[in-house]
Amino acid sequence: MGLEQFITGARNEQGIKTVVDILTQRFGDRVSTNNSIREQHSHTTTYIPSQLPDAVVFPESAEEVKTVVQICAEHKVPVIPFGAGSSLEGHVNAPFGGISIDVMKMNRVIEINAEDLDCTVEPGITREELNTALRDTGLFFPIDPGANASIGGMTATRASGTNAVRYGTMRENVLAVTAVTARGEEIRTARRARKSSAGYDLTRLFVGSEGTLGVLTSVTLQLQGIPQAVSGGVCPFPSVEAACNAVIMTIQMGIPVARIELLDALQMKACNAYSKLDYPESPALFLEFHGTEAGVAEQAETFAEIAAECGGGEFLWTTNPEKRTQLWKARHSAYWAALQLRPGAKGISTDVCVPISRLAECVTETQEDIAQHKLFAPIVGHAGDGNFHVLVLLDETDPKEIAGAEEFVARLNERALRYDGTCTGEHGIGQGKASYLPAELGGSVEMMQQIKRALDPNNIMNPGKLFPFIG
Amino acid sequence: MGLEQFITGARNEQGIKTVVDILTQRFGDRVSTNNSIREQHSHTTTYIPSQLPDAVVFPESAEEVKTVVQICAEHKVPVIPFGAGSSLEGHVNAPFGGISIDVMKMNRVIEINAEDLDCTVEPGITREELNTALRDTGLFFPIDPGANASIGGMTATRASGTNAVRYGTMRENVLAVTAVTARGEEIRTARRARKSSAGYDLTRLFVGSEGTLGVLTSVTLQLQGIPQAVSGGVCPFPSVEAACNAVIMTIQMGIPVARIELLDALQMKACNAYSKLDYPESPALFLEFHGTEAGVAEQAETFAEIAAECGGGEFLWTTNPEKRTQLWKARHSAYWAALQLRPGAKGISTDVCVPISRLAECVTETQEDIAQHKLFAPIVGHAGDGNFHVLVLLDETDPKEIAGAEEFVARLNERALRYDGTCTGEHGIGQGKASYLPAELGGSVEMMQQIKRALDPNNIMNPGKLFPFIG
Repeated sequence: MGLEQFITGARNEQGIKTVVDILTQRFGDRVSTNNSIREQHSHTTTYIPSQLPDAVVFPESAEEVKTVVQICAEHKVPVIPFGAGSSLEGHVNAPFGGISIDVMKMNRVIEINAEDLDCTVEPGITREELNTALRDTGLFFPIDPGANASIGGMTATRASGTNAVRYGTMRENVLAVTAVTARGEEIRTARRARKSSAGYDLTRLFVGSEGTLGVLTSVTLQLQGIPQAVSGGVCPFPSVEAACNAVIMTIQMGIPVARIELLDALQMKACNAYSKLDYPESPALFLEFHGTEAGVAEQAETFAEIAAECGGGEFLWTTNPEKRTQLWKARHSAYWAALQLRPGAKGISTDVCVPISRLAECVTETQEDIAQHKLFAPIVGHAGDGNFHVLVLLDETDPKEIAGAEEFVARLNERALRYDGTCTGEHGIGQGKASYLPAELGGSVEMMQQIKRALDPNNIMNPGKLFPFIG
Repeated sequence: MGLEQFITGARNEQGIKTVVDILTQRFGDRVSTNNSIREQHSHTTTYIPSQLPDAVVFPESAEEVKTVVQICAEHKVPVIPFGAGSSLEGHVNAPFGGISIDVMKMNRVIEINAEDLDCTVEPGITREELNTALRDTGLFFPIDPGANASIGGMTATRASGTNAVRYGTMRENVLAVTAVTARGEEIRTARRARKSSAGYDLTRLFVGSEGTLGVLTSVTLQLQGIPQAVSGGVCPFPSVEAACNAVIMTIQMGIPVARIELLDALQMKACNAYSKLDYPESPALFLEFHGTEAGVAEQAETFAEIAAECGGGEFLWTTNPEKRTQLWKARHSAYWAALQLRPGAKGISTDVCVPISRLAECVTETQEDIAQHKLFAPIVGHAGDGNFHVLVLLDETDPKEIAGAEEFVARLNERALRYDGTCTGEHGIGQGKASYLPAELGGSVEMMQQIKRALDPNNIMNPGKLFPFIG
C-alpha cells in the first residue's frame, strides 16, 4: 500500500489475501478472520463507524510480533496494534483493512527493579494487572485513565488521568520502549538510566505516536512509592471560576496535590441522583493529597484556607480510607451517574486541555454552548492540568444528534485552540481529531509527516490515524 | 553540502564564500569573520581541537534567524547554533566550516504567565538572567547546569543539574519551542497547555537534538513556585556504597528531596583544602529540601534516620539561609577546589548516568580505575538521578595524558553501559561522545539518522554532531 493508495483509501486486496494465508499457516488458531472477533477489534467508543481489520493475530512474544510485521511489510499490508480497545478516537479502526495485532497475550511483567523504582512490562498488561503485580513492593504505577487500559495503549496515546498533576502523564513516566518498526526490526529507545542526553528522544517520539511508527513490544515505566498517608475531600464552589481560582492558587503555592478534579453543577446533580448523595448542586473540587501523616494534614488545611479565600464552601476532608472513599463516591461514579441523565443514551467522551488560567473561561463558555444547543453534557475536569472532558449524551440512532455532537466538538476544539490549548489533553488524535491537528500545530504537522514517511515509507503502520492525509 | 561531502569531511568552499558575502551585505557589522571572534565561537571545554566557523552572525529576531538559515540552505552551507558556548562535548565546533549563529542578542523574556507557571523566552537568555527577570513573580526556573548557560543551549543539550531529582530536566520543563527548520521555515511544536496527546512529541524531539534539526527561536518553560522554606545539610558516609544506599532509601520512601549530591573522598579533601573546612575526608551527601517550614524539617529528620541506618555520620542541617550556604560551601566550590588538586592542570568534565541501584558499583569501579591509572580525578554526582561527573585534571600540552584521559572516558562509558546506563546524563553527545552512541542504542541510532535525513536532507544543521557519520 503506497501513499497514493492511502490517499485514495484503496485496499491492497492481493497483499491482504496473501498475508492472511501466510499468517494462518504460521499462527494456526491464533489468527482469526471470524466476523465477531474482527468487530471486537474495530469497535470505537465514539460515533465513528467501525472499520474491520481483515484478520486478528494474537502473538505471544516480541519475536512473533516481528514475524507478523515482517510479513505485512513485505506485502505492504496495514498493521493495527490493539490493546484493551478502550481508546476513544477510532485508533483501532482499519480504514484500509489489514491485520490487527492483539497484544493482550503479551501481558507479562518482565522485570521489577524496586531499588530503581522502575519496571519493564509487555504491552498487553493492563494498569490494574500491573498494580496487582506490584502489590508486595511498596510501589505503584500512578497513571489512571478511566478504563483499565493496556500499558501499550496508554503509551501509544500518551494517556494520563486524575493524578497527572502530581505524577505526570505517560510522557514523563515511560523510561524506554522496545518496538518493532515498519522495517520489521526491533529497537530499544533508551537505557534504564533516569535521565540521558544521548541523542534524539525516541522514547518520547513513540509515546503518543498511536501505533503509526511501530508496534510496542515492551515498556519500561517509572514507579512511585506508595505514600505513607493520603488525605482527601470535597469542596463546593459558587462558580466554575471560583473553583478554578482555587486550583490556580493551589498550584502556585506549590502544594503537591495528587488529584484535583472539577465536577460541574450538572455532573454533581447527576451524582446526587445516582449515588443518593446530598452535595450542593454547584461546581465542586475533589482533592487528594499524598505524603506523610503530617504533610497531608497540612496540605488539606492549607487548601481549606485557599478555598475559603476563593469563596468556596466547607472543605470536608479525612485521612480515613473508608470515609475518603465515601467522600469521593460522586467522582468515582461520575460516568455512570452521567449516563442516567438521559437513560438509553450513549455517552461520547471528548477532551480538550488549556492553560489553567483559561480553564474557567473555557469551561463556562462550553456550558453556555451546551445550554444554547440543548445538549445533555456534564463536565468533569482534571483541573490541575487544565484538562476537561465533556460527556455528550446522545441517541446514536439519530443522525441529527450525531451531527449536532460533531458540531459541538468542533466548536469545543476551536475554543481550546483560541485559549492556546490543545484539541486533546489525553485521548489522542486517532481518526476523530485528525482534522483539528493542522489548526493546532500548523507547520509542525508537516514535520510529523516527514518523520512518518521516513520511518514508514509504505505507510503500513496504523494508516489513517493522526493525519487524514499524508501529502 | 550533500551527504557525500559530509562523510568525506569536505567543505563547500564556493557556497561558504557566497553565503559570507550575502550575509555581510545583509547584516553589516553583525557578521564577523574576525579570527578571534571565530575562535570564541568554536572553543570547546574538552581536549577536542577547535574547528572555526567561517563567519559568526548575530541575529536579533526570529525573522533574522530565518533569513540566515534560508541563505545557508539555498547554498548548502552548515549552520551552527551558538548560545553561551558552555557546552562540553564540542557541540559548537564547525568541522565542515559554515556559519555560527550566535543568538545571545536574542535574550528577551517574551511573556510570563504567572498563573500558569510558565514563560516564553528567546533562546539567548541565560538561566541566571531568567531568574532575575522572574524575581518579582514568586516563581523560579529550577534547572541549573554548572555554567550560566543559555536557555537555548540547555534545551538543545537536554541539560539538567543539581535539582533534577525534584524538578526534572529540560525534557520535563520545556513545554514548547519555536524553531527554524532546515527548510528555513519557523514552526511551533506545541501549544501552552500543560499536557497534550496531539501528535508526535516534536517538543521532546527538539530537546536534546543539539542543533541538528533546527535553530531554536523561542522556548516555553514550565516554572516553579519559590518554596516557602528550604532546609539543607551535609552528611558523611564511610563509603560510597553506604551513601548510595541512603540515596536509594530516600527516593524509595518518596521524600521529595530537592538536591542530593554525592562528593567522593578526594573531592571532599580538595574542598577542605580550598575552602579551609574540616569535613571528614570521606564520601559525603549534600542535601536540600523544599517545602513548608514543617515539611522541610520533617524531611530532614527522616533523612537523618535513614543516614544513621546506612552507617552515615551526623546529618548537620539547618533552615537558616546563611548557615545553609556555609554548610553547602564545599559543594558550591567543588570545581575550583578540584582544580587546586593539580595547579595548572586543565579540568575535563565528563558524565555518565546509571540506574541508582548500580551507582555505588559504578562509582567504586571508577575510583579503582582512577587509582590504577594514577589519574587526578575527583567525582561529584547528582546521586538521586544516578548521574555523576568525573573531572579529569590533565596537562593539556602532554599528548600522552590526553590519550590516557580518552582511554579513561572510553572505559567509563563502557562501564555505564554495562550497568544499563547512558554515556551522558546531561552533557550531550556532540562530537566527544558520538562514537559511544551506537553501543548504547543500537538500531535506534539508525532511526535517528532516518529522521535527521528526512528533516535535513542536505545536512546543514550542525553537521558532524550526534552522528559521526550519516550512513
